Amino acid sequence: MRTLRVDLADRSYPIYIGPKLLGREDLLTPHIKGKQVCLVTNTTLAKLLLPEVKASLGQYDYTEVILPDGEAHKNLETLNLIFDELLRARHTRKTTLIALGGGVIGDMTGFAAACYQRGVDFIQLPTTLLSQVDSSVGGKTAVNHALGKNMIGAFYQPNCVIADSSVLQKLPERELAAGLAEVIKYGLIADEPFYEWLEANMSALSTGEQDALSYAIERSCQIKADVVAEDERESGLRAILNLGHTFGHAIETHMGYGEYLHGEAVAIGMQMAIALSASKGWVDAELIERNKALSLAAGLPVITPDTMRAEEFLPLMAVDKKVLDGRLRLVLLSALGKAVVTEEVTEEEVLAAIEACRS
Amino acid sequence: MRTLRVDLADRSYPIYIGPKLLGREDLLTPHIKGKQVCLVTNTTLAKLLLPEVKASLGQYDYTEVILPDGEAHKNLETLNLIFDELLRARHTRKTTLIALGGGVIGDMTGFAAACYQRGVDFIQLPTTLLSQVDSSVGGKTAVNHALGKNMIGAFYQPNCVIADSSVLQKLPERELAAGLAEVIKYGLIADEPFYEWLEANMSALSTGEQDALSYAIERSCQIKADVVAEDERESGLRAILNLGHTFGHAIETHMGYGEYLHGEAVAIGMQMAIALSASKGWVDAELIERNKALSLAAGLPVITPDTMRAEEFLPLMAVDKKVLDGRLRLVLLSALGKAVVTEEVTEEEVLAAIEACRS
Repeated sequence: MRTLRVDLADRSYPIYIGPKLLGREDLLTPHIKGKQVCLVTNTTLAKLLLPEVKASLGQYDYTEVILPDGEAHKNLETLNLIFDELLRARHTRKTTLIALGGGVIGDMTGFAAACYQRGVDFIQLPTTLLSQVDSSVGGKTAVNHALGKNMIGAFYQPNCVIADSSVLQKLPERELAAGLAEVIKYGLIADEPFYEWLEANMSALSTGEQDALSYAIERSCQIKADVVAEDERESGLRAILNLGHTFGHAIETHMGYGEYLHGEAVAIGMQMAIALSASKGWVDAELIERNKALSLAAGLPVITPDTMRAEEFLPLMAVDKKVLDGRLRLVLLSALGKAVVTEEVTEEEVLAAIEACRS
Repeated sequence: MRTLRVDLADRSYPIYIGPKLLGREDLLTPHIKGKQVCLVTNTTLAKLLLPEVKASLGQYDYTEVILPDGEAHKNLETLNLIFDELLRARHTRKTTLIALGGGVIGDMTGFAAACYQRGVDFIQLPTTLLSQVDSSVGGKTAVNHALGKNMIGAFYQPNCVIADSSVLQKLPERELAAGLAEVIKYGLIADEPFYEWLEANMSALSTGEQDALSYAIERSCQIKADVVAEDERESGLRAILNLGHTFGHAIETHMGYGEYLHGEAVAIGMQMAIALSASKGWVDAELIERNKALSLAAGLPVITPDTMRAEEFLPLMAVDKKVLDGRLRLVLLSALGKAVVTEEVTEEEVLAAIEACRS
């Protein structure tokens, strides 16, 4: 097992990473301070993973909330189901909420913990690679609003995160690949040696090899933790974590959520960001093919969707949160392993980069 | 004008106190950092006070949300009306929310500010004496849930508070009196000289004399700020601010919300807490009559409701949040000007104190 400590001023917490960690009472219980726990999960995971976690919580007053599965339910109404249950079962402000699930469950449970009686303890058991390398660090919690994603939320840190790499073998292959897109991102924005390690180990990762996965999760969380430590409230530097996301967001919006998984859209978006960085002369053009090969090995798409014209990207990129005061602000690479936030891009350059990813 | 600075670690803010402060652009605008503002108020105040505040915001992109008046609307559903409007008018994370109203508007607007895009700026313009001396300090924001009051919320500090004492003259007399109950509380728990000042100046206060009101607001906010500074997250000391509230809560619940204003129920509850403190020999029995006279001069009730038997208090006190692990924990006085949180009370003593306040 690997243990990574995330340090954030007065709040700091461990991330435990490795196979067969779910259900390990010795990891979980030291982080539960009171007598009550409320486990939140979804209908799918309630069958797959809930029983072993529940078995490790025998000594507590235990309540569970099983939410409908999917991003469509990530809203205030579903959030209120958690509050309903907490109040019905008379949970006090000393209770601990435990999120068992991917990003949606983690975001909602974390936000519920931030708000219930103005803040109670919270533990994350992320069950997808994406949530293990993304939501484990940074404290971003939220629900969606009809008029925008993640518009209502809080910055709120967990007591601990337990990232069990063996649960990833139970995931659909596409979900694993989508998580690998974020892992590749960390190499691109911050760590050339890690990127090279990924090139050497992608087949082990995509086949679910446990040692490789544990290392990749640890390194990804460490990179994110370093970025977040410098910018906990997302005032600047943290934006580099959005490499490929502005393009990806446009793809998700145009194609309709569900057509591409978030990680898949980001993979294509990163390809565009690299093409744009290369056209500025900031990275070697060779990186375009290198990253394409790496993404394909991970099982990710890398080509601009056929049905989407380059001009259709721009308005969808402009409504994105990362665009400030209407100007186009993008995360690009100034070198392999180094990201920059820049406004030095013209619409023509953006369109050309999108077209360059047609094949 | 009086200015009080509330210091809380990395966040500190001023409270401006005095007559005719609403509508003063020079106070408000230095605390608005972006170009957008969203003013939240209720239907009653929209007619009374909104025009002059709005006039001082001419230089900003201005949006307003007018909520239905009353505690019954302090819930997630009404909160969402604020989010609807913020998103419809495309407010960014650099917007500033301005709460114009009493406790309900302040609590909801503050909570909306805490959650919108994970936190935006927030200014409070409290329009009742209760909200000026209570909600101005402490950062408690919340909405109610069908199963409990203030169960969903956040600790969130404003950029500044503008407490205009002249708006208090537009309040119903009962509202002013209810606020005076909290002012008396501050003298009882923390400041004997202030209590004596209140005894000498209650007629000026209850007739709305501006200098007296400004001083009482300042002193009350200072006392609360001192308590909160030592216990921002409400782990212990802050409980002394609840003197009389556990009894008062029982009265409010039994009688139905609306029969007694919160401050009125607290006034009766403080009488009970004093009687109980006197029965323990902690304060002079003379304080019972002294405080009764002071409360009556403020226009407050001091007598246990006829229709409520002493035995009916206990179960309602036990479900109160201030009761930990089922034990009865009360805020009492160990002297005039000094409060303690204690479990050294028997049910018999509590019942006797309730009966002692029948006349």
